[in-house]
Amino acid sequence: MSNKDIKRATIGRLPQYLRYITALPQEITTVSATGIAKALELGEVQVRKDLGAVCGAGRPRVGYDRAELTASLEDCLGGRPAAAVIVGAGKLGRALLDYAGFSEYGTNILAAFDLHLPAGGDRSEQKPIYPMSMLADFCTANHVSIGIVTVPKEAAQAVTDVLYRSGVRAFWCFAPCRLQLPPDAVIQYENLALSLAHLKARL
Amino acid sequence: MSNKDIKRATIGRLPQYLRYITALPQEITTVSATGIAKALELGEVQVRKDLGAVCGAGRPRVGYDRAELTASLEDCLGGRPAAAVIVGAGKLGRALLDYAGFSEYGTNILAAFDLHLPAGGDRSEQKPIYPMSMLADFCTANHVSIGIVTVPKEAAQAVTDVLYRSGVRAFWCFAPCRLQLPPDAVIQYENLALSLAHLKARL
Repeated sequence: MSNKDIKRATIGRLPQYLRYITALPQEITTVSATGIAKALELGEVQVRKDLGAVCGAGRPRVGYDRAELTASLEDCLGGRPAAAVIVGAGKLGRALLDYAGFSEYGTNILAAFDLHLPAGGDRSEQKPIYPMSMLADFCTANHVSIGIVTVPKEAAQAVTDVLYRSGVRAFWCFAPCRLQLPPDAVIQYENLALSLAHLKARL
Repeated sequence: MSNKDIKRATIGRLPQYLRYITALPQEITTVSATGIAKALELGEVQVRKDLGAVCGAGRPRVGYDRAELTASLEDCLGGRPAAAVIVGAGKLGRALLDYAGFSEYGTNILAAFDLHLPAGGDRSEQKPIYPMSMLADFCTANHVSIGIVTVPKEAAQAVTDVLYRSGVRAFWCFAPCRLQLPPDAVIQYENLALSLAHLKARL
C-alpha cells in the first residue's frame, strides 16, 4: 500500500508505535497488535488496522517481525525524509521554524525566507532565516519538496510560483487565499482564524 | 437557525460578505445573492445557501434588506464577541496572541498566561502575558469562554481543568494529547505536525 492511501489518523499514531517498539528490550523479536494496543491503551481493532495499512497482516498468534515492522514504520514516517522551507518569517513562520515536533514525522524544515530579516535577532543554534532572493537557488540545491507559506495573502501566489519553479510540489498554505498551481502540486490549506471561528460557533 | 448549525466553510465566507456589504454606497438598501456572487467571484448557489443559513431566504427579485443582512452577519460572526485566553506563551502561543486576524471572526484574545514570563520582553502595545497564578481569576472576571491551550502535553490537562472551573467551555488544543472534560465542553484539536505529515504522505 502506498503512503498516499494511509489515513491521516493512522499516520498520527505511527510515531507512538515506533517509539514503543524502539523502547522494547533488545531480546524481543516479535510484536503483536494486541501487545501494542494494551501498552498504549488503544483499541486493538484500530492498532490492527493501522499496522495492516503499514506492514500488511501479521502472522497469526505471533504478530510482526520486530525489525520488519520497525522498517515499515520508519519508511512510512521518515524513510524518505522530506526537506521543507518556510516562506514568510513573521511570528507564525518563526514559531513553525523552531518547532521541533515536525521531524518526528519525517519532515525536516531547513530554513525560513523573508523579505525583511529579523532585526538584531541572534539566531545562533536556531534554524537560519535567509533573504527571499536566495529562495529559488536554495530549494533547487537542497531538493526541497515542501513549501510552507506564511506570507500575507497578497504575496502568497508569487512565492508559491517561485517554489514550484524550484521543484517544490507540496504546499502548506497559512495565507487566507486560494493558490493556483499545476495539477501535479498538492496543496493543504490551514486557516487558524477559521478554526477558531468554528469553535466559537459551537459554543 | 442557530450558529451551531452553520457550516465551517460558510463561516469562513461570512467576513467577505460583510466587508462587501459594508463597503457599498450608503444609498443602496437591498443586496442580492446574485450581486454578491458576481462581485466576489463566487458561485451563486453557494452564496444563496450561505445567506439562507444566516438570514433565511431573501425576497424574490429584490434580495435582502441591507440592514437586516448586515445585522445577521454581524450576529453570526461577532454579535456576541467571545473572550479567549491563551495558556502557554511559547513561540506558538505568542504567535497566536499577536495575530490580528482572529478578531474578524468575533473572538477577542485578551491575554496569554505562562509559568515563565518572557525575559526582557518589551511587550508595550502588545497583548499582555501574565503569570499562570492569575489565570483562574482573570477568566472569571472577564467572562472568558474560549481557552487556547498551547502548553506541552504534560501540562495540558491541568490547565484545561483550571480553565473549565473558571467558566471556559470551548477549548482549542494544540498539545498532542486528548483532554478529559465534562460533556458541556467543546474541544477542537489542532495538530500541526500531523497536518504536515499528512501533506508529506500525499507527495
